[in-house]
Amino acid sequence: MMREMTVDVKSLLKEGAELTDRALEELLPCKNTVPVSIHQAMRHSTFAGGKRLRPVLAIQAGVTIAGEQPKGIEKLGAALEMLHTYSLIHDDLPALDNDDLRRGQPTCHVVYGEAIAILAGDALQTRAFEVLACLDSPPAATVQIIQLIASAVGTVDGMIGGQVLDLESEHQKPTGKMVEAIHRAKTGALIRVSVVSGGVYAGATIGDAARLTMFGLKAGLAFQIVDDVLDLTATEEVLGKPVASDLREGKATLSVIHSIDHGTAKDRQTIQRVLDDRSFENVSRQQIRDILVRNGSVEYAMTVADRYAEQSRKALAPLEDSEFKRALLWVPDFVVAREK
Amino acid sequence: MMREMTVDVKSLLKEGAELTDRALEELLPCKNTVPVSIHQAMRHSTFAGGKRLRPVLAIQAGVTIAGEQPKGIEKLGAALEMLHTYSLIHDDLPALDNDDLRRGQPTCHVVYGEAIAILAGDALQTRAFEVLACLDSPPAATVQIIQLIASAVGTVDGMIGGQVLDLESEHQKPTGKMVEAIHRAKTGALIRVSVVSGGVYAGATIGDAARLTMFGLKAGLAFQIVDDVLDLTATEEVLGKPVASDLREGKATLSVIHSIDHGTAKDRQTIQRVLDDRSFENVSRQQIRDILVRNGSVEYAMTVADRYAEQSRKALAPLEDSEFKRALLWVPDFVVAREK
Repeated sequence: MMREMTVDVKSLLKEGAELTDRALEELLPCKNTVPVSIHQAMRHSTFAGGKRLRPVLAIQAGVTIAGEQPKGIEKLGAALEMLHTYSLIHDDLPALDNDDLRRGQPTCHVVYGEAIAILAGDALQTRAFEVLACLDSPPAATVQIIQLIASAVGTVDGMIGGQVLDLESEHQKPTGKMVEAIHRAKTGALIRVSVVSGGVYAGATIGDAARLTMFGLKAGLAFQIVDDVLDLTATEEVLGKPVASDLREGKATLSVIHSIDHGTAKDRQTIQRVLDDRSFENVSRQQIRDILVRNGSVEYAMTVADRYAEQSRKALAPLEDSEFKRALLWVPDFVVAREK
Repeated sequence: MMREMTVDVKSLLKEGAELTDRALEELLPCKNTVPVSIHQAMRHSTFAGGKRLRPVLAIQAGVTIAGEQPKGIEKLGAALEMLHTYSLIHDDLPALDNDDLRRGQPTCHVVYGEAIAILAGDALQTRAFEVLACLDSPPAATVQIIQLIASAVGTVDGMIGGQVLDLESEHQKPTGKMVEAIHRAKTGALIRVSVVSGGVYAGATIGDAARLTMFGLKAGLAFQIVDDVLDLTATEEVLGKPVASDLREGKATLSVIHSIDHGTAKDRQTIQRVLDDRSFENVSRQQIRDILVRNGSVEYAMTVADRYAEQSRKALAPLEDSEFKRALLWVPDFVVAREK
């Protein structure tokens, strides 16, 4: 069930992103600080046109819990964005996804070389934890926030663990279950902890933190399904990178798996060819799109995303109604309705 | 001025290392935890025969301040060792130093591939901060420890900044000043913060923390100079990797710079040849050793290391005398007198 996006939500997202950008500008070493190469690399990838979804989630969760914007919460948002950016830099490396473009910009290693890109990712992680340790929250809350975030970034059901599952999945028969496990860890964990840490920063009770966890978890799953769909259906211009990069990297996403499971034997062969070739030399992107459309696979994936968005909103039902809560409830809609 | 190493100091180092190993064993995900590849990679590099110098420094500093071993301080030591190990894994990568061997063992990327090695380094950093956030210290001390450590690992006069300076130095005329700046940041910062964080964990006053900072800084400089000398003078068997790896990587260390500055024109040419070739194809390792010996360059470097060790000990003079302080004072001697 989709609702029309109001202008207010858009401006709320825009304001959150601007607040985050100002915090990032202040918290990252400036581009003339020695050694300049790494600081330029860190800034190149941090200011490459991200949506700042994770900071906005943290800020909005904080506002919902506190009834006003908690002082200094944008620093928490900036730290979350640094962690997200570091994971993108390392994901794009030749040894991992080997991506030259992201959001229409050359990736970090393309501009600064692999060595500096590896170290810039490392440094964004380090700086994120330093910023977290300098938050204005009471020390006990700060320690809890660092525990939550480090755990969400880590190897056990966390972001790095998800990156490993993702790498390993390239050599396995794709299943919906595996794709969800990867989503839950690789992007879901950081999205979930963005919401929760914003709540904890604002003094959330244990009960409210649990509700925010569920909200973030489900919104994160919806987000990633839509991300995967856009990779197949959007244009290169909108994506800022070639269409269907996932397939080219040997990764089957939810709608592709749906076509494998429900399409003809020839559909399966065509898809498998791209997964095996890791290129569109023998099969065109349009052929893949036709298969997905004919089997209703894109609609299927969007239905699953809608269901997660609905579950996400429901998780917040016990929270007292307020304009802030209503704003937070728009996030799952935004996540599903976005076009890039 | 060298003093003979007593048996007590050796057993103290051994006990500290064993305590750290037990903590690491407990704090790292076990090798059967999914995804197994990354947990095996993290353990491969963590348990590859390190001296556990940083944890021992943290523990001994804590004991010196508290007059007894502070409960749970081995977890701080383990976190410091995780950070050290992560930096080694990334340093060894093909895009950085491209080392296949460390301490006689194949490096992480040789065994597990580059992608997993990059992520294993990332994960050791994340896990280190998670362990720090779970320390038994009061939250305010924990937050301070994380601030200090994150800053020491970072890009501005920290470990990562030192790695960048080191990379950049390969294309510049080597000077003693540059080598010290690299030492101070690349290895010095983490050694220094190991001492300080151990003191803060034990409740050090600001004054004592400043003394421990100076102690750690100077001991760290002594340590790295000796490390560089051993790279040139020890055997491959003792080093666990080929002799003179630094030179082969285009890195001139203190004794080499001394021979460049004080040797004959031919000495300079011979050394420059190796730095340019990045191999010992045209010049033998023995030729380099002969040049260093003839110019007294190894002795010169060891004299500088001795001076730092002495300054290190002096920094602790204002601290009350105790058996623990006396134990800590042996560390600079150990650092200078060690053979590997």
